[in-house]
Amino acid sequence: MTVSVPATSANLGPGFDTLGLAINLRNQVKITTSKFHSVSLKGEGSSNPKLKDNNMFINIFNDFYKNISNKKQQFRFEFQNEIPLSRGLGSSSAVIISAIASAFAVGGMELSKQKLLNLALQFESHPDNITPAVMGGFTVATVDDHEVHFIKKKLPKNLKAIVVIPNRPISTHLSRKSLPFKYNKDDTAFNVSHSSLLTAAFMSENWEMLRAASKDRIHQYYRMKQMPELFYVQKIALRNGALMSTLSGSGSTFFNLVYEEDAKNLISKLQKNFSHFKIFSCDFDNDGIKVDY
Amino acid sequence: MTVSVPATSANLGPGFDTLGLAINLRNQVKITTSKFHSVSLKGEGSSNPKLKDNNMFINIFNDFYKNISNKKQQFRFEFQNEIPLSRGLGSSSAVIISAIASAFAVGGMELSKQKLLNLALQFESHPDNITPAVMGGFTVATVDDHEVHFIKKKLPKNLKAIVVIPNRPISTHLSRKSLPFKYNKDDTAFNVSHSSLLTAAFMSENWEMLRAASKDRIHQYYRMKQMPELFYVQKIALRNGALMSTLSGSGSTFFNLVYEEDAKNLISKLQKNFSHFKIFSCDFDNDGIKVDY
Repeated sequence: MTVSVPATSANLGPGFDTLGLAINLRNQVKITTSKFHSVSLKGEGSSNPKLKDNNMFINIFNDFYKNISNKKQQFRFEFQNEIPLSRGLGSSSAVIISAIASAFAVGGMELSKQKLLNLALQFESHPDNITPAVMGGFTVATVDDHEVHFIKKKLPKNLKAIVVIPNRPISTHLSRKSLPFKYNKDDTAFNVSHSSLLTAAFMSENWEMLRAASKDRIHQYYRMKQMPELFYVQKIALRNGALMSTLSGSGSTFFNLVYEEDAKNLISKLQKNFSHFKIFSCDFDNDGIKVDY
Repeated sequence: MTVSVPATSANLGPGFDTLGLAINLRNQVKITTSKFHSVSLKGEGSSNPKLKDNNMFINIFNDFYKNISNKKQQFRFEFQNEIPLSRGLGSSSAVIISAIASAFAVGGMELSKQKLLNLALQFESHPDNITPAVMGGFTVATVDDHEVHFIKKKLPKNLKAIVVIPNRPISTHLSRKSLPFKYNKDDTAFNVSHSSLLTAAFMSENWEMLRAASKDRIHQYYRMKQMPELFYVQKIALRNGALMSTLSGSGSTFFNLVYEEDAKNLISKLQKNFSHFKIFSCDFDNDGIKVDY
């Protein structure tokens, strides 16, 4: 059985803990029954001997599997990872989502996408990465009474994501700690209006509106201060065809959305200025998690 | 020449200073050239001898007209008003919008809806009433660099607005003053996510999502405390078929959205409990301002 989950970019500027979308970089795990427990790992994270993120997978998988099945079965897990670790591209959410889904699939128990999202809240209280990881596309989500409420919109093929991955992370913990405790009414209303307009722009495919709508006043500035080059990444991107240019999750990756025909030029402009960062184009993903038996 | 503008309900719960929609109660003014300046007023406000809101119309009209035309022409203004005054249904925005549009129309000068919105910002800095008044339908708007950026979605005929108009106003000024100066991160993120989800629900016509998405934490509670019956209006509405039930602008009107088939029952339930309030059903408006020569 094989489970794969896409990378995700959350917040999208003003949509703090709310908006996200799925990018077609996938983490895949192949699970087969085996006499002994074993793990292999290729791709992102494979140079880390602690296999930290994979242990998180195994722990969550085992937790659910023991509740679903009373068989004492051992498994071989073969991981093939494309999502960079600790760069704000949803690698933790991908692990959580794929581990839960794998346990249900291997245990032979049905699991709706809605239930998968609700179960994932135990491990990740914000819905902005887990929702696009499960559903694909652009998603708007909130949590109410332990349930994820969301709306999804597919993304068209003529748009590309240009991801700019710095050579070092911003700690999610430090990044959250750097945010103010309180916001004034103007900044609050600013983000309410921009996140709503950005949502309407995605829903109505009004891409020219992204530029005005993707501005944020409540988190990006505070987080980007920890890696000031990011202000220049954003400036260069917006001057060279990016329809929007936002911090991916809590960073350090920068997410840029462009028309297909502008992708090549934007990559070359960014690469010229940030030769030490990994910069490439990706398709969007509209499927979310895939489980193949 | 006749200009008419619809009533509007702004905020729609979480969409503080951002979301609004147009309701088919219209203020109309008929303007004819005349030897002497004269004004007649029928409908809402006609019992007020000061004609306060009409003076606002004449002042704004004159301001613009004198810049557009160098003729020393006098006019007869015949107002026919359906929008209640000072109840949070956009009567001021309707006056501003219709006065500017009338001056341009009478002066024979073209005026796009976008320019009309931008000009209206001189008199009303928030875009949440003026945008649906001009465009009709459901609108998401923000102001950036003296320009209104907005997206509109038409509302279908099988939805109705049930408006509950209390027998007294909440002062807009007091209502704004009652709001906190600062919001914590949780309440800010709550409104960002709910306003965005509400936007997605309107854009995708996912009416069942309105109930979860229309919750607010940043303004309604503080304003409703000034007229505590409103908490009961909301409770009764949500228990009797309202898909959403929100304070209209800064009040005192309560706006409820229902499927057509639930309108009659909701009105009767509300009327039984609030016999001193004016309660009735309206269609939504998808046209916004209308100028007929």
